[in-house]
Amino acid sequence: GDAEKGKSKSATCAACHGANGISMIPMYPNLAGQKEQYLILQMKAFRSGDRQNMVMAPMAKGLSDEDINDLSAYYAGLNPGG
Amino acid sequence: GDAEKGKSKSATCAACHGANGISMIPMYPNLAGQKEQYLILQMKAFRSGDRQNMVMAPMAKGLSDEDINDLSAYYAGLNPGG
Repeated sequence: GDAEKGKSKSATCAACHGANGISMIPMYPNLAGQKEQYLILQMKAFRSGDRQNMVMAPMAKGLSDEDINDLSAYYAGLNPGG
Repeated sequence: GDAEKGKSKSATCAACHGANGISMIPMYPNLAGQKEQYLILQMKAFRSGDRQNMVMAPMAKGLSDEDINDLSAYYAGLNPGG
């Protein structure tokens, strides 16, 4: 995916996952530096319902494959240390 | 949880998630520096089946709450940069 495009699509995500991909909320995972492929799989699972989460379902519903690839590239590229 | 005890219980986990909590396998997530509460929730979800994954289900089945707390403390305490 395209990390730059991903960044431009990440405003909603940043609310919970942090502007730098490090979450401020203990229940919500850090995404910075996470495996790109893993992120893609999880967003697709939230979108399809294979993985169920009331917060993430509506978030993922509106994402295209390209959005998912771009967001995954963006977060995978962030410094894991924040 | 007790990170030292968690470390002693993490041999099986390290096979996929890496000895330093950074996975070598693109499909499997890095755990180093992840949110402790998030890790606890995910392992309990894998154990109960709320979150379904054929690899993680048998791994989580045998874990007690104490094991889960210790493993979560261990991985949350690892350097996210590996």
